Amino acid sequence: MGKYDHLKDTCYKANMKLPELGLVLYTFGNVSAGDQENGVFAIKPSGVPYEELRVQDMVVLDFDNNIIEGEMRPSSDTKTHALLYKNWKGISGISHTHSTYAVAWAQAQKAIPIMGTTHADHLAIDIPCTPVMSDDKIKGNYEHETANQILNHFESNQLNYQEVEMVLISNHGPFTWGNSPDKAVYNSAVLEELAEMAYLSLQINPDAPHLKKALIQKHYERKHGKDAYYGQK
Amino acid sequence: MGKYDHLKDTCYKANMKLPELGLVLYTFGNVSAGDQENGVFAIKPSGVPYEELRVQDMVVLDFDNNIIEGEMRPSSDTKTHALLYKNWKGISGISHTHSTYAVAWAQAQKAIPIMGTTHADHLAIDIPCTPVMSDDKIKGNYEHETANQILNHFESNQLNYQEVEMVLISNHGPFTWGNSPDKAVYNSAVLEELAEMAYLSLQINPDAPHLKKALIQKHYERKHGKDAYYGQK
Amino acid sequence: MGKYDHLKDTCYKANMKLPELGLVLYTFGNVSAGDQENGVFAIKPSGVPYEELRVQDMVVLDFDNNIIEGEMRPSSDTKTHALLYKNWKGISGISHTHSTYAVAWAQAQKAIPIMGTTHADHLAIDIPCTPVMSDDKIKGNYEHETANQILNHFESNQLNYQEVEMVLISNHGPFTWGNSPDKAVYNSAVLEELAEMAYLSLQINPDAPHLKKALIQKHYERKHGKDAYYGQK
Amino acid sequence: MGKYDHLKDTCYKANMKLPELGLVLYTFGNVSAGDQENGVFAIKPSGVPYEELRVQDMVVLDFDNNIIEGEMRPSSDTKTHALLYKNWKGISGISHTHSTYAVAWAQAQKAIPIMGTTHADHLAIDIPCTPVMSDDKIKGNYEHETANQILNHFESNQLNYQEVEMVLISNHGPFTWGNSPDKAVYNSAVLEELAEMAYLSLQINPDAPHLKKALIQKHYERKHGKDAYYGQK
Repeated sequence: MGKYDHLKDTCYKANMKLPELGLVLYTFGNVSAGDQENGVFAIKPSGVPYEELRVQDMVVLDFDNNIIEGEMRPSSDTKTHALLYKNWKGISGISHTHSTYAVAWAQAQKAIPIMGTTHADHLAIDIPCTPVMSDDKIKGNYEHETANQILNHFESNQLNYQEVEMVLISNHGPFTWGNSPDKAVYNSAVLEELAEMAYLSLQINPDAPHLKKALIQKHYERKHGKDAYYGQK
Repeated sequence: MGKYDHLKDTCYKANMKLPELGLVLYTFGNVSAGDQENGVFAIKPSGVPYEELRVQDMVVLDFDNNIIEGEMRPSSDTKTHALLYKNWKGISGISHTHSTYAVAWAQAQKAIPIMGTTHADHLAIDIPCTPVMSDDKIKGNYEHETANQILNHFESNQLNYQEVEMVLISNHGPFTWGNSPDKAVYNSAVLEELAEMAYLSLQINPDAPHLKKALIQKHYERKHGKDAYYGQK
Repeated sequence: MGKYDHLKDTCYKANMKLPELGLVLYTFGNVSAGDQENGVFAIKPSGVPYEELRVQDMVVLDFDNNIIEGEMRPSSDTKTHALLYKNWKGISGISHTHSTYAVAWAQAQKAIPIMGTTHADHLAIDIPCTPVMSDDKIKGNYEHETANQILNHFESNQLNYQEVEMVLISNHGPFTWGNSPDKAVYNSAVLEELAEMAYLSLQINPDAPHLKKALIQKHYERKHGKDAYYGQK
Repeated sequence: MGKYDHLKDTCYKANMKLPELGLVLYTFGNVSAGDQENGVFAIKPSGVPYEELRVQDMVVLDFDNNIIEGEMRPSSDTKTHALLYKNWKGISGISHTHSTYAVAWAQAQKAIPIMGTTHADHLAIDIPCTPVMSDDKIKGNYEHETANQILNHFESNQLNYQEVEMVLISNHGPFTWGNSPDKAVYNSAVLEELAEMAYLSLQINPDAPHLKKALIQKHYERKHGKDAYYGQK
């Protein structure tokens, strides 16, 4: 019994939801489970197909990317996860996919406009899309810089990572997070659905407006506000 | 054995068809089963995933939103259901989903044009889309006002709720109903299909006309008119 | 044992392929199995969901729409099937669906252009789309006239029903046929795929040309010509 | 026990992945397994549905299209496979499908632009699309000339078949290859996904740029370069 068996198990189960939800093809995508108290996270090993994945294959690292437990190479996106955990103490799960519609918006280099209450049930603004990374950063510590892109974009736009749990990396794809790996995966699936809905709405009506402020507030607050009445107590 | 066990059972089974038909993601959507004689309806509890749903979780309320049976919080859209049952004595089931193409049209703030016989087999006009709600109503008794939006839109456009069993709420999504919860769910699935077909037709030919009157009448009447010859006697 | 048990069985099995192939929703669609020697055909009963369908429910009629065997009402499209069998002695199966992309083209009132070899492997011209029916025919013997639309369109355009086994009825949807009910269903599935491919190609490149004559001939002949070398001998 | 039982088995299993991955309808598509040492390859028989396919049905031929083992007619595309194996000594598997989005691009006669890192993870340039074949070649040794189209396109554009393992044949569809039949099938699935993503991106933003050079290099190199760190050692 290792110290982080539970973390690995949670991480494994959350990863296995990605193919179930149709969010990944082959080895694309990765989910991590964070333990803020111990300053570590478990993550999927790199390039292993989901159907061959085992709980014991999960790799445990600290937030400076040192391997604590595990024999395999961690996901190539590990440094992005590490830096997000290090900076955002309120998150315990991160999910990264190459889901089709979310990637399409990222490749189009566009934020996903908030157009309906499905979106407002989850966040109150457009789903942000980071600017394209500069060449020197790409050639430098790339995956580390990917996290910096997210952190800087959130800071310069005064976004709250606990209210906005998703982002598109320009030309790459989505990262989502939350207070558990399951919530991060949930956000990946919701983001993909919002991406498809917004796509279709703008094909139907290129002049369709953003959702009005009162509706945004109403839907966001009824699910997330202090007087929220969505779900069970 | 409770008085409304049968109603709960019907309600539960109709709700479980939504994920089967691919019309919902996670906890999105809700179906209710109405009992007009006793002035009550059973509805899905709020925010419970379909795979965890149990018959006994269904909540029974009267048409003024008083809970008659059940321990859980009812769906956040309960007041919309209640007011529709109260006003439309001929319905015994209501279904609400966030299905992708129907939501896309709602977000585009456009009625779905009647373009073919698949549509005319079910209703003889465009699928109506309510106007956007005013801010004071959104900030007021929102879910109650959502039903009022529907009722007012049907009244001011002289629509018959027994001939037009579906509507889009601008920026939100579809509500459908019928003489049973199963019929309401059936209408949700049909609406989603009509929404996709109309979308594709207009992408292929932006100038494609509405279905001509004679074809609308023929198809609607052969299924719903007094000399209907579709289906078994 | 009835005289047409085998015909009913073939008809039943071909109908059950429609939901398997994702070509129908609920009771939409119908397949018939023709017996040209005896001048009869078996067809799906009207409005019966596929999951409840039984072999013995199939209705057998002659080509003048007289019921020969069966207790149930035949499909509302029966007269269309009957007249096609009566006129086209070389066919033994007809399939009618409301599959999404085929209906979208029918609603757009456009023939599906031949744009690739997948199309040319099956037919050498655009998939024809009949003109819209006149009001007096719609109000007359509608389903009978639907067959006349097809027959007239094929005659006036000198199309060979054994080379072109599919057609779109404007604002309605596709009919396909062949030397067996299975071949008719096969053609329904192929038509849906061709409809989607042509749709996407024109979205990518609105100026994409028709397939050139030499490629049409090559692909059509290698599968259907006298020196065909596709498939087993 | 035949000399090429293992080759047939590998070939059979790779073919069976095509329907599993949703890349083929009916008998469309074919995969071959090459044995460069013995100068032979096993390929799917022509026109046999996947659900009826058996290991022993695979046909073994040499690179000049002489049948070495097998009773059935090989795939009608056999000569295309043969000539590719003969010229490209580094490949041991070829896959050909009529997958929807890849065919749509081929019918649009357009290369698939490299727009994101999902694409760059697999190849560093646009997915090439061959020019339309001349009439005399179509009427000549067509399937042999299809391979020549690919070989010539790669040569005249100085493409490396070990770096670019996929191509679109104008108006036809995709061919993919690799160091094993499984890798070839993997490339078919990846190509279909890239084709859909690029399609959607350009629908969202017709002016979306190609992926910048630094990002292409970074993603391609981290997976395929000499210092690759994607996957397990």
